[in-house]
Amino acid sequence: MGMKVVALAGGIGAARFLGGLVRAVEPADLTVVANTADDIRLHGLHVSPDLDTITYTLGGGVNTEQGWGRADESLAVATELAERYGQPAWFTLGDRDIATHLLRTRVLAEGGTLTQATAEIAAAWRLPFRLLPMSDDLVTTRIVTADGRDLGFQQWWVGERAGPDVAEVRFAGAATATPAPGVLGAIAGADAVVLCPSNPVVSIGPILAVPGVEATLRHAPVVGISPIVGGKVVRGMADRLLPAAGSKVSAAAVAERYAGFLDAWVLDDVDAGEVAAVERLGVRAVTTDTIMRTPQVAAAVARTALDLLTLVVST
Amino acid sequence: MGMKVVALAGGIGAARFLGGLVRAVEPADLTVVANTADDIRLHGLHVSPDLDTITYTLGGGVNTEQGWGRADESLAVATELAERYGQPAWFTLGDRDIATHLLRTRVLAEGGTLTQATAEIAAAWRLPFRLLPMSDDLVTTRIVTADGRDLGFQQWWVGERAGPDVAEVRFAGAATATPAPGVLGAIAGADAVVLCPSNPVVSIGPILAVPGVEATLRHAPVVGISPIVGGKVVRGMADRLLPAAGSKVSAAAVAERYAGFLDAWVLDDVDAGEVAAVERLGVRAVTTDTIMRTPQVAAAVARTALDLLTLVVST
Repeated sequence: MGMKVVALAGGIGAARFLGGLVRAVEPADLTVVANTADDIRLHGLHVSPDLDTITYTLGGGVNTEQGWGRADESLAVATELAERYGQPAWFTLGDRDIATHLLRTRVLAEGGTLTQATAEIAAAWRLPFRLLPMSDDLVTTRIVTADGRDLGFQQWWVGERAGPDVAEVRFAGAATATPAPGVLGAIAGADAVVLCPSNPVVSIGPILAVPGVEATLRHAPVVGISPIVGGKVVRGMADRLLPAAGSKVSAAAVAERYAGFLDAWVLDDVDAGEVAAVERLGVRAVTTDTIMRTPQVAAAVARTALDLLTLVVST
Repeated sequence: MGMKVVALAGGIGAARFLGGLVRAVEPADLTVVANTADDIRLHGLHVSPDLDTITYTLGGGVNTEQGWGRADESLAVATELAERYGQPAWFTLGDRDIATHLLRTRVLAEGGTLTQATAEIAAAWRLPFRLLPMSDDLVTTRIVTADGRDLGFQQWWVGERAGPDVAEVRFAGAATATPAPGVLGAIAGADAVVLCPSNPVVSIGPILAVPGVEATLRHAPVVGISPIVGGKVVRGMADRLLPAAGSKVSAAAVAERYAGFLDAWVLDDVDAGEVAAVERLGVRAVTTDTIMRTPQVAAAVARTALDLLTLVVST
């Protein structure tokens, strides 16, 4: 029996890391719990960007250049919706991608759960690990802008290109949500829980906001990889959101957000100067090259993280 | 003010005839009531084949070669649904066509009616007449086969290529359905109601089966164009269904089905020998070239029909 591992994941950064993690552990012993608070209903379709980015990346069908969406994609449906029917075009869905959303939406419309839809899609892509949504309930990240507007996350991020300053981030529906079946059990039974190098505010944050998740993490061995390198985001917009959430934009500041349950933290080599600050939180820290240019580098990061966690747990 | 005209319509044959009718009357005074009992839910999408064939044909976007679906169509979504996700592929939806179904399905999911969805789609196509579904309620044509199976119409027609012999045709939900808003009013106020040369069993039949329609037609001036020419169908499968519905496959036999409300009937020149039989039903009959190779021929058929009806009404 291999090490039972749970990964908490957002989108692109997590997907690239997971491409390494499946090389570092036995995939059959891996459960990936993905953020679904970025989910959005577009043209009546239930779109789950993080689930799909993970599925397409690990299934070998992602547009590797942009990191999301499908390779060899076309836009016939979106073009017709916009040009013929005047439908909103700020969030473009590719044709192949729409096939995924149609399947998911139909399962949900027939009374199935997001967990069931996700399992059906993951099986079609022959994912070698278990992929779970964080919850079958609707949890929605809302961005309250400095000028007082309450926007959906995708509206702020994609629709307004993260332009408006952020006053507050909240997760509508989280307080009454239930973790998806299998989530708490996987965490409770894990030999290692890995926080992917995802946005701490709007990717990992919503997963932690689902009641029961953080409490269960407190009793599990948890290691994370910093999504902040040299005081900057590797990708995404965490630098816009961390200040609104009361944190500095640094590897140590992200570790501090997780300090209540974090046992080990992997920083990039350029952040060696922050190791001491992390260890003062009671979190064991190590540095390595965390820029995951290839799955081989990502696998090395995963091994570093799991080795450090094993060391912490055994001492 | 022009003549107020209502056309009862099925799919391809009706759409070609309507291409002539809009040249023969003032389109703003025309209401087209379309069969929706062929509607089917596929991949969670609400597909309305007859409404769409009429819309695409009259809107200038139809695949003229096949008579249905969109010109310049692609199949990216359908291919992905079939090949990646193993979804049923017996009824293929094109990408541009899917945009229409997405719009309709979203309107319905948001609590709108099929009438509202149809109006929104028709407006996008700038149809110059009013297009109405026969009902906002679900009415579904069922084909009971000779070997005792109860199939949806599309399953029999498209899925099994009309192979199994037909024992019975019924319209599930018709007895409790209500005509769509505007249907009865349009018929009651019409100077002419035209039965398009559509399948009498599964295109015109379901419209007549909606409670109130046939009773209202009895008080309206009604002319029809025979879909049977020389004892054969011009297109479609009425020859397979008329016997199951108790009629012969002839122009006169179709007129007889409508005899309770029909005032005038247009037959093809090759069926001149049936004129006497039609007139014995108390229905005025005339023959002309009804093979609508061009919109000009279709317009001539429409003028012949309306002229005959005007003559009948005035005498």
